[in-house]
Order: sequence, then structure tokens, then C-alpha cells
Amino acid sequence: VASPRPERLSINTATLRKQWTLSDIISGCARRGIRMISPWRDQVAATGVKETARRLRDSGVGLSGYWSRGLFPGVDRQARRLALDDNRRAVDEALSLGAPCLALVVGGLARDPDGRTTSKDLAGAREMVRDGIGELLDYARPAGMTLAIEPMHPMYAAERSCVNTMAHANDLCDELAPGSNSGLGIAVDVYHVWWDPELRAQIERAGGHAGRLATYQLSDWLVPTTDLALDRGMMGDGVIELPLIRSWVEAAGYDGPHEVEIYSERNWWQRDPDEVLSFCIERHQSVC
Amino acid sequence: VASPRPERLSINTATLRKQWTLSDIISGCARRGIRMISPWRDQVAATGVKETARRLRDSGVGLSGYWSRGLFPGVDRQARRLALDDNRRAVDEALSLGAPCLALVVGGLARDPDGRTTSKDLAGAREMVRDGIGELLDYARPAGMTLAIEPMHPMYAAERSCVNTMAHANDLCDELAPGSNSGLGIAVDVYHVWWDPELRAQIERAGGHAGRLATYQLSDWLVPTTDLALDRGMMGDGVIELPLIRSWVEAAGYDGPHEVEIYSERNWWQRDPDEVLSFCIERHQSVC
Repeated sequence: VASPRPERLSINTATLRKQWTLSDIISGCARRGIRMISPWRDQVAATGVKETARRLRDSGVGLSGYWSRGLFPGVDRQARRLALDDNRRAVDEALSLGAPCLALVVGGLARDPDGRTTSKDLAGAREMVRDGIGELLDYARPAGMTLAIEPMHPMYAAERSCVNTMAHANDLCDELAPGSNSGLGIAVDVYHVWWDPELRAQIERAGGHAGRLATYQLSDWLVPTTDLALDRGMMGDGVIELPLIRSWVEAAGYDGPHEVEIYSERNWWQRDPDEVLSFCIERHQSVC
Repeated sequence: VASPRPERLSINTATLRKQWTLSDIISGCARRGIRMISPWRDQVAATGVKETARRLRDSGVGLSGYWSRGLFPGVDRQARRLALDDNRRAVDEALSLGAPCLALVVGGLARDPDGRTTSKDLAGAREMVRDGIGELLDYARPAGMTLAIEPMHPMYAAERSCVNTMAHANDLCDELAPGSNSGLGIAVDVYHVWWDPELRAQIERAGGHAGRLATYQLSDWLVPTTDLALDRGMMGDGVIELPLIRSWVEAAGYDGPHEVEIYSERNWWQRDPDEVLSFCIERHQSVC
């Protein structure tokens, strides 16, 4: 398999969040010739949307996506309304920053206002996610902002996202936004989906005419993995067949960014951030 | 929903493995009126198969299943042959102990002889699992021992089992043992499958005429979960809708044992084992 084109590389800002501010990340990427980042909303909020837009413009760095914790499920109508309002603001921010899509971590089981999981109703959470995305689409589509559903690993079903397979994400797209390029897509993160025996078929379903492959994210699954959330590996250090999955998304027509997103409390968050970027650049070429 | 019949309760021996020997577990369960256990193979080996059979007989405790790490994938033909030989011995032991089924943890990616994961070939591992189960069936079926495939949570795909959904387990049954009551079934553990949006449909598919629901296991998914392997919860302490899933397996015709299997380094393995059994008995009645 040929190496990916270097200019596809994008750095999700979670990868360097412990070492650098968003401004540092933008200038650090620009120095290394990395032309795209994919920021998390809280990191943008810390810098400010306008200031972030200015720094991106000044440094010639663009966005490959904008990441938000959508968290649609809520314990009552009021909680869901607040979540929807917040999601609409995320759409506005994504527009201000010129992001090609707003990627959604849709939320798990409903939580009370203190953040405690108080519900076991998984099917109900999934309905709230469907309804919430549908309502947000009514806002995002006329504004021209594509929403991207991220199917997350089943180990996050309770706390982060109750959409846990590509098939489920495809089903949601079929239901809420049928047809091609309908303003709703899927964020494919190899970390979340590598284990799925249906992965190839569901990537094919999302690609081609459907045009749902909104973005593609890279990291690796370590053996052993010591933490459910914060022990992702650098590409090549784990067991995910990265060239194989890339061949599937490319065969499905995807030719967009490759976002590196690594949460790593014990390793990469402890390292010099310039060294982390060097690894991202080198491994993107050598093992992805 | 009506409480389950108390006599369905079975204790998987992993639940008390840190506090008690297998002999202790057998006598402890007998004292509490629990008539079934489901032992892990290594715990039986520590006591000896004959001695275990004698103690079971003397105490009037039966088996609801026998659990083995089948680990079919191997780095070469020799490794797979050794694994198959070992699996055949597990069938013999299950027969000696009068177990109704041999449940298989089928293995993840192939490992070298030192136990290191040296392969990333997930599709290849799945083929080795299919072929290995097929070969073991040729041995187990004439002997009258049902094999049960356990689909395990996707977070175990690399290290423990590359069969991660009920759909995959059903597909394997269709391919290797079509027809009803064909000697190959599925072990449904709520901990592994609760998140699956296809769960109800795949339980229906496994039940009824297919007759594949070999055993049913209980524990709970804690929020938060602090360890991938050893932080399972007591039923009722987590977020799994236990009565709902039981209603599905019962609607599919299952009326067998309810095995409690809790790996819990930080809580239940630290407690007095008699207290753990009290919780198992009470929670089985009140929340399952």
C-alpha cells in the first residue's frame, strides 16, 4: 500500500491538550508544515472563537473538523432543550471557524444536572439521540454545516456515546437524512470501530453515493490497554490494521483528512509536544 | 416482571476465586442452598477433576457449565494443534464432571509461545476460531458435549476473544452447525452484550427453533468502570437493564441457569465470600 499523502495529516487537539494551549498547537503545527488541525470545543472556548479564527488565519492552518460533546440524552425536556441550544451554538462556532463538519459525541445514558448517570434506559437514550440530531439538523443544514456522528467503542455506551457501531450510525443517517450529501455524515475513528466484523461492509455503505464519510481518525489499540479512556496508542504501536482500514475508506471514495487523536495519560501526554508531532508525521507516512 | 425462580441461580467460580478454593466454593454454595456452580477450568485443575467430581456429588451441587479458555488462534500450525488438543481435554473434563456445556473463550489475535500478541490479523484470527471450533465439534458432538461460544465485549477483541457480537456467534453457528440443537450454542453474558443495538433480534435468532441459548450470565456494568477486565459490578449496582434482557432470553425459550460471574478486584474479591453469596442470592431475586 502506498503511503498517504503527507498533506492529509491533521492533528486533533486532544493529542497535545496536556502540554499546549490551542494557540501553541496552531503555531506548533504551522512550524512543522501541518496544515490542518481538528479542535475540541473546550479548547477553542479557552482561547475564544474569534481569537482562534484569527490565529488560524495568520498561521495558514485550517480545520479538518470541529469536535463537540453533543450529549443529547437528558433526564427531562428542559435538560434536552439546554443541550440542543448548546449544540446550536457549536454549529455557529463551527461556521465561524470555517470547519467542514461538526463532529458529535452524542452522549450515553441520561445524566442528572450533577453529571451522575441516573438512567438505565439505553433504548430511550438512543431515541433521544435520534431526535436530538434530527432537531440539530434542522438548524445546521440551512446554515450549510455538515454534522458527523461518531460511532464510539461499545465500552463508552454508558458514559459517552450510545451509538456504538457503524451500522447504527448508518441507520441514523438513513432515517434522518436519506439521500446523498444530505448534511449528515459519519466520523470514522479506527480506535472505535476496528474490532467490528461488519466494518468493511458498513464503510462501503457509508461511502460511494451516500457520501457520508465525513472524517477519518487515527490512533492505535494497545495490548494491553490499561485505561478505558486515556490509554490510546500512537499509530504502529498497537494492533489495528491501519493500511487495511484506510484501503476500505479510500475504496469507498474517501479522500479527506487523516486526523490523529491520541489520549494518552501515561505516555504521549507526558512527552515533549514537538516530539509527539514528529512521531505523528513519521508514523502517518510509515504505518498508516 | 416476576422475580426469577431462586433455583436458577448458579455461581460462576470466578466470582469467589480470590477468597476460596473450588472445594470451598462447592461447600459454601451447598450451605446456602445454591444447587449449581459453573467452574473455570484452571480452578478445577487445582483441585483435580476426580476430586471435584466427588465433592460435587457429595454436596449435591451440579454444574451449569464448564468454562475454558479455548484460545484457538495460534502463530503457526503447531500452536493451533496444541490448542486443539487442549480443547479436546477440556471436552473430556466437561464430560467427567457432567457439565451440560463447555463454554469457550475463543481467543483474540494470535500470540507467540510467550503469550505476546504478535499478529494484527483480526480476520485471520476469526478464521482460525471458525476452523478450530469446527474441528472441536467433530470431537465434542459424537461425545454428546455441547460447545457454547461466548461473544465477548469488543474491548477484549485483541486479547481474549475475536467473537464480539451475538450476530457473529450466530453466524458461526449457522456455518458450523446448522439446524436445531446441533451441539453448538451461545453463552449470553449480559456484561459482554448489553450495549448491542441488535441484542434483542440476535437473542431471538439464537432462541426458538435454533435452540442455541446454552447459558446466561449475570453481572453489571459499573459507571464509571475503572479496569477493562476486573471491575464488574454486582447485579443492580450498574446500568444494565437485567429484567429486560431476561425477558428477551425467556421469550426466546430459554429457561436455564442464571450464572453470576463477577470479576472485581476492588470490591467483591475483597469481601467475605459468604457475604458475596448473600448478595448474589438477594440481588438475583430483587433486580435480575
